[in-house]
Amino acid sequence: QEVAKLLELKAKLGDEPAKKFDLKCPKGTRDYNPIQMAIREGVFNTIIKCFKRHGAETIDTPVFELKATLTGKYGEDAKLIYDLKDQGGELLSLRYDLTVPFARYLAMNKINAIKRYHIAKVYRRDNPAMTRGRFREFYQCDFDIAGQYDPMLPDAECVKIVVEILSQLEIGDYKIRVNHRKLLDGMFAACGVPEDKFRTICSAVDKLDKTFWADVRAEMIDEKGLDPQAADKIGFFVKFSGGLDVIEELLKDASLATQKEAVEGLQEMKLLLQYCEMYKIADKVVFDLSLARGLDYYTGVIYEACLQGYTHQPTSPASGQEEESVTVGSVAGGGRYDNLVGMFDAKGKKVPCVGVSIGIERIFAIMEHKALATNLKIRTTETEVYVVSAQKNLVEHRLRLCQELWDADIKTEQSYKKNPKPLDQFQYCESNGIPLSVIIGQSEIENNEVTLKNTLTRVERKVSRDALVQEIKKELAQLKSQ
Amino acid sequence: QEVAKLLELKAKLGDEPAKKFDLKCPKGTRDYNPIQMAIREGVFNTIIKCFKRHGAETIDTPVFELKATLTGKYGEDAKLIYDLKDQGGELLSLRYDLTVPFARYLAMNKINAIKRYHIAKVYRRDNPAMTRGRFREFYQCDFDIAGQYDPMLPDAECVKIVVEILSQLEIGDYKIRVNHRKLLDGMFAACGVPEDKFRTICSAVDKLDKTFWADVRAEMIDEKGLDPQAADKIGFFVKFSGGLDVIEELLKDASLATQKEAVEGLQEMKLLLQYCEMYKIADKVVFDLSLARGLDYYTGVIYEACLQGYTHQPTSPASGQEEESVTVGSVAGGGRYDNLVGMFDAKGKKVPCVGVSIGIERIFAIMEHKALATNLKIRTTETEVYVVSAQKNLVEHRLRLCQELWDADIKTEQSYKKNPKPLDQFQYCESNGIPLSVIIGQSEIENNEVTLKNTLTRVERKVSRDALVQEIKKELAQLKSQ
Repeated sequence: QEVAKLLELKAKLGDEPAKKFDLKCPKGTRDYNPIQMAIREGVFNTIIKCFKRHGAETIDTPVFELKATLTGKYGEDAKLIYDLKDQGGELLSLRYDLTVPFARYLAMNKINAIKRYHIAKVYRRDNPAMTRGRFREFYQCDFDIAGQYDPMLPDAECVKIVVEILSQLEIGDYKIRVNHRKLLDGMFAACGVPEDKFRTICSAVDKLDKTFWADVRAEMIDEKGLDPQAADKIGFFVKFSGGLDVIEELLKDASLATQKEAVEGLQEMKLLLQYCEMYKIADKVVFDLSLARGLDYYTGVIYEACLQGYTHQPTSPASGQEEESVTVGSVAGGGRYDNLVGMFDAKGKKVPCVGVSIGIERIFAIMEHKALATNLKIRTTETEVYVVSAQKNLVEHRLRLCQELWDADIKTEQSYKKNPKPLDQFQYCESNGIPLSVIIGQSEIENNEVTLKNTLTRVERKVSRDALVQEIKKELAQLKSQ
Repeated sequence: QEVAKLLELKAKLGDEPAKKFDLKCPKGTRDYNPIQMAIREGVFNTIIKCFKRHGAETIDTPVFELKATLTGKYGEDAKLIYDLKDQGGELLSLRYDLTVPFARYLAMNKINAIKRYHIAKVYRRDNPAMTRGRFREFYQCDFDIAGQYDPMLPDAECVKIVVEILSQLEIGDYKIRVNHRKLLDGMFAACGVPEDKFRTICSAVDKLDKTFWADVRAEMIDEKGLDPQAADKIGFFVKFSGGLDVIEELLKDASLATQKEAVEGLQEMKLLLQYCEMYKIADKVVFDLSLARGLDYYTGVIYEACLQGYTHQPTSPASGQEEESVTVGSVAGGGRYDNLVGMFDAKGKKVPCVGVSIGIERIFAIMEHKALATNLKIRTTETEVYVVSAQKNLVEHRLRLCQELWDADIKTEQSYKKNPKPLDQFQYCESNGIPLSVIIGQSEIENNEVTLKNTLTRVERKVSRDALVQEIKKELAQLKSQ
């Protein structure tokens, strides 16, 4: 008795006293509410449909990898990798992208050819800018083609995929800039850059989408010790941008002609642009010799898609606005990385790869903004029928109706109150966009029927209890065809 | 020139020397290959369809939470939580389940009522047993109903959902054991267990699905200092198992009748079983007073679904086989947790919740095993058409055909070789189960037509180039209707 009283008191007070602590998501991360999830599902469906249209399989890998797997793949960006605490056992890190785990997967399973997509979250301890879609936890949607194939055939398909996805998402006009790492390296050689400075000078060029040439030039000369003459030659080349005509012009350039890599790169660019014409996407593709891409592992074609409404505005770092001048318009990027898989193979056996990654967070941000702006009501459930009690004490009848509808694969809800008010139930239908309700009352029970009501038209009709599933399916089919 | 030669040499050798390191996934984790992904997609589709049939929305939360968010929620299991390394900034941990992040989400957004599902990976530094589907990284599929409602209405729907999912997955016969934490507590009180020992004695009872009563009794008395008489009384009660008749019998028990909690628990159990009858699932549900469930946070109904083909075989820990005797058959579980959200609210404001978690990894393991056993070929792509060159130098024509088919939303592939052998192309179709091929050769080009071939029947027919999309869609529709 004493115990029971204590238990009762305890139940009333709650098991735990109220605590004080930060009620928040970790920095740079966010929850998705049901509306955001509905938008996300729509975007993913478009992307996955495209990947499947191109015959891709899908794989998945763990969210963390052995720390050693990620080591030496990301250059300076390695500092952004999340490490797990050493709790005994292996040293682990959260994946930084999906490309390195993919290469590890290929090497580990000795796969020589695969076309796969992988949609999953990756992790970077970067400075978040969440309103612009830059997070510490974010989705990547990767499509890659691994295998020894003929030049530019897989590469051009990756560019085609970007066009299909960005066009179907209807997020505004865009361009895909393309370039070639071999051409860049050959151009650097032609300009007199020492080979051991290729990657660091390439990183400097990569900043051209957010800073002025003058600043990039200063970085090359002052920080990276490049000869000013070489820098100026680079400055001459990085202005080249356009279509096949520009490639032809560069093929005639005497200094590039001496560089085997440059010529190879130009010839591959030419082939890529020709294939893009056959794919009817040439109007979306711009060759741009200033495109460099940050990651070390690219070895051939590189590309990046930018939304035109969100173009980059180079600002001087001196203005203190560098943070604000990031290319917010970049929504997809990728390229060829022929040596990465070999880094995981004991004998260095290579598997050539090319791929593209869709930067989905930026697209989510735009879609969310669009949804808010249009004030369109987004349904977060797919419920088709709501079972309504017209009177008290009909919970058993409701349960039996729900059972019947669920077992007939009709999406059905009901109130979790034993005796809900009719008005509350109809309001729930309306505010949740549930198209039909099935109403049961004493008279319906006596006549072995129910009332079927269309939420929008408010038209009601009696339906025999036995024909209910059939009548609902008929009505739903009609609603869908409207 | 010198540089070019060096570059060429470098390209031949590869950028990096071969390295030696562990080429593996972290302990307790695995990759999913395309076949496993196809199985996984099928299982998820069945589950998501069921959750949507019951009107659930979905949310997502970050893979890691502030460490403080997880603190004090998991009792002894807290030692299994993965912590992230302190790299400056917040202290973070990987989520251990989806329930605590859900409660944090509700409190943070002041949500009083929601019905949501959440499918995502969770992390536990447990001893993995991968062949039996026990991993350190694994999926949970959670469905929860939050809100102040009438007794057992949300609870019974959770049980109904388990039945729908397990029946549709066709993984064998199963039973859902149900019990009630209030009944357990009232029973402990009736047996003379001191209130401060309720949880620890409950943990001991929880082991009854893997060990003999004699061992559990010894643990209660020797380790946990319980009076042997009390232990024997518990031993009497935990044998009760069955349907409404057993509940009625217990309602007549004089010692339980003195315990308000026990009576409340029994009455709720009775109502739950009655609702299960209305939902036509009573044959799957067994009341079992020995079901305890490990987690601290349950406050009401608890349930657990076990496959009958994989029932638990209690073995003595002394036999050294405890590891092997784990209830491998448990594939779903859950219960009511009315106080968890209040732990995150500054004022302790509660949101009653009930939910169920589908243990998907075990189901994957069974489905994978079934797929292997039946030797059924599982397609990992959905490609409908393969574009075939009958001769050399037709790559341009192939590209134009692919463009046309992709833009008409037909799932199309082609070889990435410039001049693939016809035989290789047809073999690709057959081994990948691609139903149709479009063949182009010189005569087809001259007549402005293509050859459309059915892979299975090998029937070929000429189709006008202009009617191609239309003819393919017709043929695909026919194939689907067969």
